Amino acid sequence: MSFSESVHAKAIDLIRLAIDMTAEAGSGHPTSGASLAHLVTVLLFDHMRYDPAEPGRVDADRLILSEGHACPIIYAAAPDLGMKIGNGSEQRKATREEVMRLRAIDSPIDGHPNPAEGFPFFPAATGSLGQGLSVAAGLALAARMDGCRNRFFCLIGDGESREGQVWEAIDFLQDQNLRAVCPIFNCNRYGQTGEVSPMQSPEILIDKLVAAGYEVAEIDGHDPEEICSALGLHAERADGNEEEPVAIVARTIKGWGFPVAHGDGHHGKPVSGEDREKAHRELDETAKTVGARWTDGDLNLSAIPSADPPPKFATKAAPANLRDALRRFEQEAILEKGKLATRKAYGHALRALGHADARVVVLDGDVSNSTYSEIFKDDPDLRDRFFESRIAEQNMVSAAAGLATGGKHPFMSTFGKFTLRAYDQLEMALVGRANVKLVGSHCGVSLAADGPSQMGLVDAGFMRSLATAEIEPGKPLMVLLQPADAYAAYALTIAMGEYEGPCYMRTHRPDVPFLYDEDSTFRIRGHHVLAEGDSLLILAAGYMVHEAMGTLDRFRERDLNPTLVDLYSVPFDESAIADLARANGGRVLTVEDNYGGGIGSAVSDALTRLEVGCRIEQMHVRRIPKSGREPEEVMEYLGLSRGDILRTGLSMLSGSNAG
Amino acid sequence: MSFSESVHAKAIDLIRLAIDMTAEAGSGHPTSGASLAHLVTVLLFDHMRYDPAEPGRVDADRLILSEGHACPIIYAAAPDLGMKIGNGSEQRKATREEVMRLRAIDSPIDGHPNPAEGFPFFPAATGSLGQGLSVAAGLALAARMDGCRNRFFCLIGDGESREGQVWEAIDFLQDQNLRAVCPIFNCNRYGQTGEVSPMQSPEILIDKLVAAGYEVAEIDGHDPEEICSALGLHAERADGNEEEPVAIVARTIKGWGFPVAHGDGHHGKPVSGEDREKAHRELDETAKTVGARWTDGDLNLSAIPSADPPPKFATKAAPANLRDALRRFEQEAILEKGKLATRKAYGHALRALGHADARVVVLDGDVSNSTYSEIFKDDPDLRDRFFESRIAEQNMVSAAAGLATGGKHPFMSTFGKFTLRAYDQLEMALVGRANVKLVGSHCGVSLAADGPSQMGLVDAGFMRSLATAEIEPGKPLMVLLQPADAYAAYALTIAMGEYEGPCYMRTHRPDVPFLYDEDSTFRIRGHHVLAEGDSLLILAAGYMVHEAMGTLDRFRERDLNPTLVDLYSVPFDESAIADLARANGGRVLTVEDNYGGGIGSAVSDALTRLEVGCRIEQMHVRRIPKSGREPEEVMEYLGLSRGDILRTGLSMLSGSNAG
Repeated sequence: MSFSESVHAKAIDLIRLAIDMTAEAGSGHPTSGASLAHLVTVLLFDHMRYDPAEPGRVDADRLILSEGHACPIIYAAAPDLGMKIGNGSEQRKATREEVMRLRAIDSPIDGHPNPAEGFPFFPAATGSLGQGLSVAAGLALAARMDGCRNRFFCLIGDGESREGQVWEAIDFLQDQNLRAVCPIFNCNRYGQTGEVSPMQSPEILIDKLVAAGYEVAEIDGHDPEEICSALGLHAERADGNEEEPVAIVARTIKGWGFPVAHGDGHHGKPVSGEDREKAHRELDETAKTVGARWTDGDLNLSAIPSADPPPKFATKAAPANLRDALRRFEQEAILEKGKLATRKAYGHALRALGHADARVVVLDGDVSNSTYSEIFKDDPDLRDRFFESRIAEQNMVSAAAGLATGGKHPFMSTFGKFTLRAYDQLEMALVGRANVKLVGSHCGVSLAADGPSQMGLVDAGFMRSLATAEIEPGKPLMVLLQPADAYAAYALTIAMGEYEGPCYMRTHRPDVPFLYDEDSTFRIRGHHVLAEGDSLLILAAGYMVHEAMGTLDRFRERDLNPTLVDLYSVPFDESAIADLARANGGRVLTVEDNYGGGIGSAVSDALTRLEVGCRIEQMHVRRIPKSGREPEEVMEYLGLSRGDILRTGLSMLSGSNAG
Repeated sequence: MSFSESVHAKAIDLIRLAIDMTAEAGSGHPTSGASLAHLVTVLLFDHMRYDPAEPGRVDADRLILSEGHACPIIYAAAPDLGMKIGNGSEQRKATREEVMRLRAIDSPIDGHPNPAEGFPFFPAATGSLGQGLSVAAGLALAARMDGCRNRFFCLIGDGESREGQVWEAIDFLQDQNLRAVCPIFNCNRYGQTGEVSPMQSPEILIDKLVAAGYEVAEIDGHDPEEICSALGLHAERADGNEEEPVAIVARTIKGWGFPVAHGDGHHGKPVSGEDREKAHRELDETAKTVGARWTDGDLNLSAIPSADPPPKFATKAAPANLRDALRRFEQEAILEKGKLATRKAYGHALRALGHADARVVVLDGDVSNSTYSEIFKDDPDLRDRFFESRIAEQNMVSAAAGLATGGKHPFMSTFGKFTLRAYDQLEMALVGRANVKLVGSHCGVSLAADGPSQMGLVDAGFMRSLATAEIEPGKPLMVLLQPADAYAAYALTIAMGEYEGPCYMRTHRPDVPFLYDEDSTFRIRGHHVLAEGDSLLILAAGYMVHEAMGTLDRFRERDLNPTLVDLYSVPFDESAIADLARANGGRVLTVEDNYGGGIGSAVSDALTRLEVGCRIEQMHVRRIPKSGREPEEVMEYLGLSRGDILRTGLSMLSGSNAG
C-alpha cells in the first residue's frame, strides 16, 4: 500500500506543478497531463531503467510522449528526478523555477516535446499527433541491432489513435517482432472538441489491438498497482517469443484530481485565477481520498540492463565512384551499356555504403525493386539492416527518425510521389534534428506510362522550401539533390552518407546515358558546368539535364553558344551561378520536370538578391500530366521537349544582341 | 449454374483483354486485374444499379478502384458495357480498339484511374494507394444528403490495406453510419516486392474489421455465387440499422486463370511474347475447368433505385462583407473591439456561405474550436452539413474529394501544420479535378506558444508550387490565399465559395486589428496597395502585413516613403506588381512568416520573367522556430520583428539614391 500512497502523492505533486506552469505560461494542457500523472509517475520514478541525468543512453529505457501536448506532466517530474536541461555549455539541472518558465522564448521547456531545444529526455519532437509509436519502433530496432535489452514506452492519446499511422506502427511492430515497445493508450475520453468517437473507446481499441495480435492489459490508469502489474506483464513478454506481446489500455480521467476541469471544454486550457485555487483545494481533497502519502524509498529506479558493450562501428570510406563500387562487386559490366538509371545507381551506392558503415540502415515501402534499395536488401551481409516498411510511408519516416535517434544512419526510399504522404512526419523529424535521408524515385515525368498518380511533381518545391531555412548556420534544413546520371547518383548517395543532416534525393525511372565518369566529383552545394558559353545560361537538374544537353548542338548550328549547368544541389553556390548569369548576358533559362518552386525559384531568388540584372524564363510542368507510353511524348504534352527548350531559348535570344 | 458459367466466361474475356492491352502498352498490371475479374464482372455486369453510358448520375451505384493500378480489368469491361469515354465533344463509345490504346498519350485510357482524362466511370483519380475508401465515404455522404439510396463499392488491395488511411476511413464510415459503402478487400497475397505481411492476411483483416464493428463476408473471390451472396448481404444491411454493416474479404489469385504469371515477381508486369500466348492457352484450359459459358440474359443490370427527385439547391448570394454577415446574425458587436482573428472570420463566413448555398459542407479534424469552423457546426440549420472527421487528416481530404464528386462544395479545416499529412491526398484530389477548399489555421509563427509542431511553415511553399501550374488555361491548380485581417478572411472565404477550383487559405491565431472595412473588396488574383510610395516596395501577406505596416511611420520619420502591398493571393497580377517594383526603384522586400518558396519566390519568379531590373530581399523564417509566450518574441527570435523589417529596408535604401 505504501507504494500506492507514494505514487498518488507524487502524481498529485506533478499535477499541481503542471497546473501552475501552464497557468504561468498562459497556455498549455494541464488536464491531458493529469490523465497521465500516475502512469508517468510509475514509469519515470520506478519502472524505467534509465539515468534521468543522461536519458539518451542507447541501452536505457525511453519514453516517447506521442500525445506531445501533455508534456507539462513530464516537465513537472524533471526537477525531482534531477534531469538535465539546456544544450551544450548551457546544460544545467532542472529546477522548479526553470520548469515554471514553460514556453518562454529563452527556455528549453518548449510548448511541445523537443530534445533539440534542450530537453533530452524526449527522444523525438512530437506534438503533431500519431507519430510516437513509429518513433518508438525505430528506437527499438536500433537498440536490438546494438544488442541492448531496453524497453520503450509510448503514451498515445485515445483521440490521437484515430490517426492511421498509429495502426501502421502497430503492424510494423508485429512484423518486426518489436516486443520491447510498450504501446500505452491513454483513454481519457475527451478530445479537443468533445468526446472521442466510440471507435476510439477503450472497448474498441482493445478489440483492434487484439485483432492485431496483442494481449491487452486493461487498467485503471490512476491505480498504481494496476499500472505496475501491466508494466510487469509487458516486461515479462518483452523477452519471450511464445505468447502475445503486450499493449496497455488505460482508462483515465482528463483533469484527474481537480473536478473543476473535468469533462468537455477543458482541453488545452490552463486553469487560471479562482479555478486554479479551487483546483489546488480539490487536489488536497483528492490526496486525502486516495490516501496519498510520500515515503522515501517506495519508488526506485532500476539499474540499466546490462548488455554487451555496444558494438564499435568502424567506418571506412566507400568506393568513391560508381565504377570502383561495381568493380568491387564484379558488376562492372553494367557500365558497358553506356547508360544506367539514377535509381539503380542509388541501389549500388547503398550497398557500398552499407559495407563501409555498419550504422547505415535502409527502409523501403514495398517498392524496393523500383527504388533499387533491393540491391542492399539482397546482399546477405546487409539484409539484416533492411527494414521492409510496406505500404505505409508515415510509419516509415517516423521510424527512421527513431532509428536516427538510436544512432543509426537511416536511408528511406519510395516513389517521390508517395513521399508526400509523410511530409508532416518528415518535418517533425527535422524539428527534432534527426539525421534522415529520403530518396524519392520515379520523380518528374520521365516515368511517363504510369501517369500523375505515380509522379513526383511537387516534391521539388516542398523540399526547396525547407532548403531555404537552416538547422544551424551553414547547415540547411534540407538538402535537395537531383542527380542527372548514375555516376552523380552514386556519388551523391555516398555524400549523403558522409553528411550529417537531412537530405532528399530525386531519382528517375529511365536508364539515361552517362554524362560523367569515375573522375567526376560531386558535393552538397555543388554544380557542374557541362558547357561554357556566353549567350544563354541554361540550368537544369535530373532527367532534364539530358533534354537540355540535346539542344546544345541545335543552338550551336545557329552560332549560339549557351552555357549549360547541371544544378544538382539546392542550396548551391549562388555567387558562382550569378557570375555565370552575368557572363551570359543575364539571360537565364531553367528547366525542370516538376511543378514550379524548385530550382527555377531557387535561381530567381538568388539572382534577385544578388541584384543580377537578368531575365529568367522557367520551364517546368504547368499542367497535370497524363500517361504516355514514352517519356518524349509526355515531355511534348507538357511543353518540355527538346524542341520546346530550343524554341524558348531562341525566343530569349531573339531581339537581344547575343550570339 | 448458368449465372456462374456466364460470370466465368465474362471474367475470362476481361482477363484476356487486360493481358492484351497491357502487353500492347508495354506496362501495366494484368495480374492484379485478374484477381479482381470475377468481382468486377458481377459488380459491373449485374449487381450495380447504374447506367454505363452515364455513370456519374448522383443516384446510381458507383465503384471506386482504390487499388488503381488494377484498372485494366475495368477498362476491359468498357466496350461490352457501352461505356462512354473521352471528354466533351470527343465523347464516344468505348471500343476494343480504344481500350487497346491504354496509356497512349492521346488516349483517355490512362495508366491509372482518372475521370478527368475521359473515363467518367471512375469517380476519382486513384493510384496512390489507400485513398479510395475515404472517397467512397464522401460520395456516400453526398448521396445521403440528396436522399439517394445508391451504394458504393470500393475495391482495396491487401497490401494497400497497410495504409493507415484505410482504417481512418473504416472508423469514419462507422462514425457516420455509412452502410451504403461496401469495402471489398482483395486478398491476392502478393504485393509489389513479395508476399504481403501476415498483418494484411485475410484472417487478420477480418479480425480488424470485426473489431471495428463490421460483419465480414469471407469469400472465394473467384466464386460467382459467393460474390453474389456477399453483395446481397451488404445490400440487405445497407438499408437497415440493427445489425452490423458488411465488409467483404475476398481470397483471390493474382493472375487467376493463367498460372504462367502466378506467384511472386509478376506485379506490374505485362505478360509478353511467348508468355502471352501461353497465358491465353492457359485461359482456354481454365475456361474448360470452371465451365465458362456465356449465356445472354444471365447477367443483368438492375434499375437505378428510385429516389425523390434530387433537391434543387437554389443558391443566393452570401452577405458581401463581414459586417453585413455579422449583422444578419446579430453579432455586429464583435466588430467593436476593432480586431478579430482571420480564423474567426473564416468561421463567420462559413456560416454565411452555408446559409446561401446548400451544397456547402464542412469537415474538420477535431479542431473546430480552433479553426472556428464550429460557427458553422453550432448553427442548428447547418450542423447536418458538418462532418466531424476527427484526428485523421488523410481521410478528411479524400472524403472531401468524394463529396465534391457528389456535387457538394466541401470546405475542410485543420491547423496548417496538419494539412501536410494529407498532401498526397490533396494532390490526388487535384489530379481528379475535385473542387475542394482547404483552410489551414494557426499558420506561420504568430501562434507562438505552442511551438513548431503546430506551425504552418512549409504549407505556403507547397501550395505556391501547385499554384505555378494550371488545371486549364487561366485556372490555377491551386489558389493560395493569405488574408491579413478579418474582413479579408471573410471576403476571401466567400470568394472561394463562389469559385470553381481548388484553394488553400492560411489563417492565423491572434486577433489582429482591422486593415479593411465593409467597402473593401477582395478577389482571387487580387492584392491591395496599403501605402503608395516610391522608395521601396514591401510585399507581405497574412499576419506579416501588420508587422510591415508597423514600420511605415518609422520609414517616414526618415523621409523614406515605402509602398506596402498586401499580396493576399497567389497567383497575382504580375504586371501590376512589376509596375510597382519599377515605381520603387526596383527595390523589393518580401516579408512572410513561413519558410521560403512562398510569396517571395512568387515575386522573384514574376519579376525576373518580366525582366524588371530589381533587387529583392526576402524575409522569411530561416531557422526552426521554438515556443515563445508572445508572437513578438518569436518574431524577434526569427529575425522577423518590426525592427528587423525596418533594418532590412533601410539597408536596401542606404547606398541607393532613394528617399
